[in-house]
Amino acid sequence: MKILIINPNRDDNMTAAILKSAKNFANGDFEVACISSPAAPKFIETYEDQIKAAPDMIKLLKENEEEYDAFIIACHCDPNLDLMKEITKKPVVGIGEASMKMASMLGHRFSVVSTDRHSIPNKEALIRKYHLQDLAASVRAPTDEMTECSDEETYTKLAQLAVDEDMAEVIVLGCAGMAGLDKRMEEKLGVPVLDGVVCALIIAAGLVKYNVSTRKIRRYNPDY
Amino acid sequence: MKILIINPNRDDNMTAAILKSAKNFANGDFEVACISSPAAPKFIETYEDQIKAAPDMIKLLKENEEEYDAFIIACHCDPNLDLMKEITKKPVVGIGEASMKMASMLGHRFSVVSTDRHSIPNKEALIRKYHLQDLAASVRAPTDEMTECSDEETYTKLAQLAVDEDMAEVIVLGCAGMAGLDKRMEEKLGVPVLDGVVCALIIAAGLVKYNVSTRKIRRYNPDY
Amino acid sequence: MKILIINPNRDDNMTAAILKSAKNFANGDFEVACISSPAAPKFIETYEDQIKAAPDMIKLLKENEEEYDAFIIACHCDPNLDLMKEITKKPVVGIGEASMKMASMLGHRFSVVSTDRHSIPNKEALIRKYHLQDLAASVRAPTDEMTECSDEETYTKLAQLAVDEDMAEVIVLGCAGMAGLDKRMEEKLGVPVLDGVVCALIIAAGLVKYNVSTRKIRRYNPDY
Amino acid sequence: MKILIINPNRDDNMTAAILKSAKNFANGDFEVACISSPAAPKFIETYEDQIKAAPDMIKLLKENEEEYDAFIIACHCDPNLDLMKEITKKPVVGIGEASMKMASMLGHRFSVVSTDRHSIPNKEALIRKYHLQDLAASVRAPTDEMTECSDEETYTKLAQLAVDEDMAEVIVLGCAGMAGLDKRMEEKLGVPVLDGVVCALIIAAGLVKYNVSTRKIRRYNPDY
Amino acid sequence: MKILIINPNRDDNMTAAILKSAKNFANGDFEVACISSPAAPKFIETYEDQIKAAPDMIKLLKENEEEYDAFIIACHCDPNLDLMKEITKKPVVGIGEASMKMASMLGHRFSVVSTDRHSIPNKEALIRKYHLQDLAASVRAPTDEMTECSDEETYTKLAQLAVDEDMAEVIVLGCAGMAGLDKRMEEKLGVPVLDGVVCALIIAAGLVKYNVSTRKIRRYNPDY
Amino acid sequence: MKILIINPNRDDNMTAAILKSAKNFANGDFEVACISSPAAPKFIETYEDQIKAAPDMIKLLKENEEEYDAFIIACHCDPNLDLMKEITKKPVVGIGEASMKMASMLGHRFSVVSTDRHSIPNKEALIRKYHLQDLAASVRAPTDEMTECSDEETYTKLAQLAVDEDMAEVIVLGCAGMAGLDKRMEEKLGVPVLDGVVCALIIAAGLVKYNVSTRKIRRYNPDY
Repeated sequence: MKILIINPNRDDNMTAAILKSAKNFANGDFEVACISSPAAPKFIETYEDQIKAAPDMIKLLKENEEEYDAFIIACHCDPNLDLMKEITKKPVVGIGEASMKMASMLGHRFSVVSTDRHSIPNKEALIRKYHLQDLAASVRAPTDEMTECSDEETYTKLAQLAVDEDMAEVIVLGCAGMAGLDKRMEEKLGVPVLDGVVCALIIAAGLVKYNVSTRKIRRYNPDY
Repeated sequence: MKILIINPNRDDNMTAAILKSAKNFANGDFEVACISSPAAPKFIETYEDQIKAAPDMIKLLKENEEEYDAFIIACHCDPNLDLMKEITKKPVVGIGEASMKMASMLGHRFSVVSTDRHSIPNKEALIRKYHLQDLAASVRAPTDEMTECSDEETYTKLAQLAVDEDMAEVIVLGCAGMAGLDKRMEEKLGVPVLDGVVCALIIAAGLVKYNVSTRKIRRYNPDY
Repeated sequence: MKILIINPNRDDNMTAAILKSAKNFANGDFEVACISSPAAPKFIETYEDQIKAAPDMIKLLKENEEEYDAFIIACHCDPNLDLMKEITKKPVVGIGEASMKMASMLGHRFSVVSTDRHSIPNKEALIRKYHLQDLAASVRAPTDEMTECSDEETYTKLAQLAVDEDMAEVIVLGCAGMAGLDKRMEEKLGVPVLDGVVCALIIAAGLVKYNVSTRKIRRYNPDY
Repeated sequence: MKILIINPNRDDNMTAAILKSAKNFANGDFEVACISSPAAPKFIETYEDQIKAAPDMIKLLKENEEEYDAFIIACHCDPNLDLMKEITKKPVVGIGEASMKMASMLGHRFSVVSTDRHSIPNKEALIRKYHLQDLAASVRAPTDEMTECSDEETYTKLAQLAVDEDMAEVIVLGCAGMAGLDKRMEEKLGVPVLDGVVCALIIAAGLVKYNVSTRKIRRYNPDY
Repeated sequence: MKILIINPNRDDNMTAAILKSAKNFANGDFEVACISSPAAPKFIETYEDQIKAAPDMIKLLKENEEEYDAFIIACHCDPNLDLMKEITKKPVVGIGEASMKMASMLGHRFSVVSTDRHSIPNKEALIRKYHLQDLAASVRAPTDEMTECSDEETYTKLAQLAVDEDMAEVIVLGCAGMAGLDKRMEEKLGVPVLDGVVCALIIAAGLVKYNVSTRKIRRYNPDY
Repeated sequence: MKILIINPNRDDNMTAAILKSAKNFANGDFEVACISSPAAPKFIETYEDQIKAAPDMIKLLKENEEEYDAFIIACHCDPNLDLMKEITKKPVVGIGEASMKMASMLGHRFSVVSTDRHSIPNKEALIRKYHLQDLAASVRAPTDEMTECSDEETYTKLAQLAVDEDMAEVIVLGCAGMAGLDKRMEEKLGVPVLDGVVCALIIAAGLVKYNVSTRKIRRYNPDY
């Protein structure tokens, strides 16, 4: 089995971090690759960024459709996920959807740790798109007074606040770039911390093995 | 006041029909223009169609940003509407959002008449995006036995079924291409029939006159 | 086109302020008048106030039905709005409904600034009636420590808190008596601030021009 | 203990039927009276009817406030219920609210049998007001082909359809005028059939005995 | 009429307190008894506790089914309530369901005062099970700094916070063991404070008198 | 990796069918076993059945806790799932939860094919417990006229109706006893058909590999 992780942005460092984390999880049970979208923005934040990432994402999917058995979109806002599900018969999994739905099986409520306060409304819209609004305790993002902390300290602090004040019982890392922080944060927090890439690998590998994929006659029908 | 209607597809006949309907409504109170997206698909149905329409939509908006006071996206699935709101400080109104929210002010529940049965799931997702799911009585689309009717007969029949069986009290035309049918259907049905382009013109012209527009510091912030 | 604004209370100062703001917006494009309800309470707060305002509201609507093309109910709790929609074939628009639905088109979430803390439950019930509960960030009302501020300072402070703490992106003025504050507050806050009377004028004038009105066969049928 | 049932309409026959049913239930455990609203409409159907009933309802409540321990509003659309709760410190119970909330304790879902098809939207709005929309299987009202049946046959047939097709497990009689049908219908249907007046008596008598009533500092505060 | 209160735990002190409060309310109008579940846990907190209480609860119900007219489950998490409703044709009422639904008739929103912070997620799940999530202002439980207060002081303080900060208008005692605190807390708080046992007695006695019980053909059918 | 499937009923034929299907999926990648609950009912339908199954389920889990890495509860109504998650630190997955959440990733809406019409209310309650009510198109169960068909024909017919009339895009098999029908039905229907046991294996194996499990400090804390 071969799974391709598409990083919708062009940041090769992030691509490398995602791949490392993915290979670590795959542990040789299946092959996994990760590629950047060279013409996409450096980071996907705005709606425009999402659209600008689309041509590369389509191209990467089509070029690799034969070779790979499933595809993962490795940006936690699941950009163009509906489109990607639509244009291939093979399974496509978004790290946002996979991580938040898996979180809902592990505790009463989950919180998402996000990179920036301005992204909260978009993350909330995504949560509602997946009908998870009553299962999400909060979306937490760094506040101004946290600027002197390292990223890891900041995200751990945010997660701790979510656990203590928002009654979260599971933490979802809200950015593919947080790959690798899950287990270190889990140890400090004492609650499950989910990396979306790993969650998506679980679902994608499962779908391939089960030989099921996106239903194609209505919503995701490319031949309308 | 000058309002530009962007037709996200390349169908000039539809553009002409939209413009006729819009000018008829504007009645000289404000200027209105409508342009097609030349490199876009002939008709916007799939998620891929929506993405393929984006570059032209962005280009048309940017080229005309100075000259026009507000913009209308004239496809009832509101493709790339969040993006369009994001990249300009001027008001942008989607015909789906405007027509369905206006419908909610005129009766207990509204129904949307759509062009094709496969589009129902996407229309339902749009309705939910706008938090209107409990105000929508149904989305109705032509069934196989209606293939011999004219479009107008078919849509009128669907609307009648929505009124009689689904308890709809207002009908929303679910495609910009239905421009011009509203008043003829209204006469037959005895209920308000809303053309999204007209509804969007009401909102857009109102926003220009009131000098308010999309909030730009979080969700629609282009400078993230 | 002639639009009549019915102030459900008997406060002529408020009526004058509403009319000034309305004329300023109409700017000669249509005629607008505003009348008080002489036998109604001085201010509409309780359920009993709403009922006590009804006879005058009915009388004013019936007396002016021929002369005017549309009617606006200028109290942000939309008292007797369903009744008013029911007894006339002409459009009737509530400033609560119009302002909050328009707010939902301009940002992720809106907050309502209200006059008094005891009114919050009723405002929340109104928000829910319109299915807007997930789009409303908060209803904010003056707290005890704000009693020394001017009204304008207080409302601006409340709106700022809504923006900063509740993640509101649009502010709705929760009382017709706040007419005239919108643009001054907008300048300080940097977010759209909506006056319900203006929003209702946009909708009402649009409905008249489009020649649509409340559906009359079921919910708002006066001839049951 | 003395409970006063206020019939918001002026139909003395309905008042007599309600009283008979109420006395039958009270069975001497508490005193119960029922009075019509002489200046109210013959039947409460429209929003205007509800408002027209208000002055008598207020008058009857105030005149009898000292003498009675609790009040029941005996129209299933709960007209002016919020107002009635507001103007007295004694318990006020609506037959719509009491019957539908009690129904939710007896089965998976309940259906309401209503008198007329045009009333369905208003009944649905009431159901939603009480947050019961997911617990209501349907609101059923007579269809045209049922016109030759007696009322009792018609309502029983509607209830049977609700049980068989809508998966209802409890039937709520949707009009105070259906008093007396509950046990006869129950026998035919094999499911609980709830008369709102009886349900309201249960709640009202319980509140009196428990010495609790409507909370008066915010929503129902008459001294705003 | 004879009502049996089943205390799902084996704590005879709690059973005595419940019985005292119940007899005080019954006031001789009907007979009431309360029995402990001797093989059940001392206190019902976990899911395992709930299951461990089941055999005794079933046994107590079956042994007393002939003699009593209705049954009350006196633990505010309503353990095994669906099961108890299923295995008898007589009415069974849970103190959680009865108290929270009755609270919803007395004010805008209610809050539940709970015994321990870890129980909040389970209480929230119960609230959602009854479709009351939008009517519940909060579930409050003692915080660490309250450990030196008496139970009554602590619960009163929590209730006050719910009223002041969460806008609660009615307080629900979230544990059968709080029996007897209702009126003392009510006096201090000025809002209705509901003891679930009393609320359940109101509903149970009413159902017996009305001769209705749980619907038995689908959801609660023991003869599947 | 070793996964234990607990069949909550005592039907060894069903246990054998589940195991066959599970081994077929596992395909040697991990070990899987399935055991019946010898003192449990033959089939789990009622709430009482669920409780009667609990002692064996607890015993089987505790006896095998050391040896196995994860546990699956193989009854589609997820009996005692919260309890099972509570009493072990290892992952426990219900086939109802896993299959319906996975279905939500593959299409617009899913339908559940159930064994019996009386089980629909309980299945709907389960769907709502998981917050999936707006993603479920329907729960379909055999009707009287289907009694002469084979089980497989009946379930396929029900699934076809769900696809055609309820707009389902994914089918979930609503009983562990349907193991083995998935791929045959999928071929006839042209939509994904999900066997809950396989879905649970995907999630359980993934959780083991990722080394995450149920959060234990609040909702599922056995040491309350």
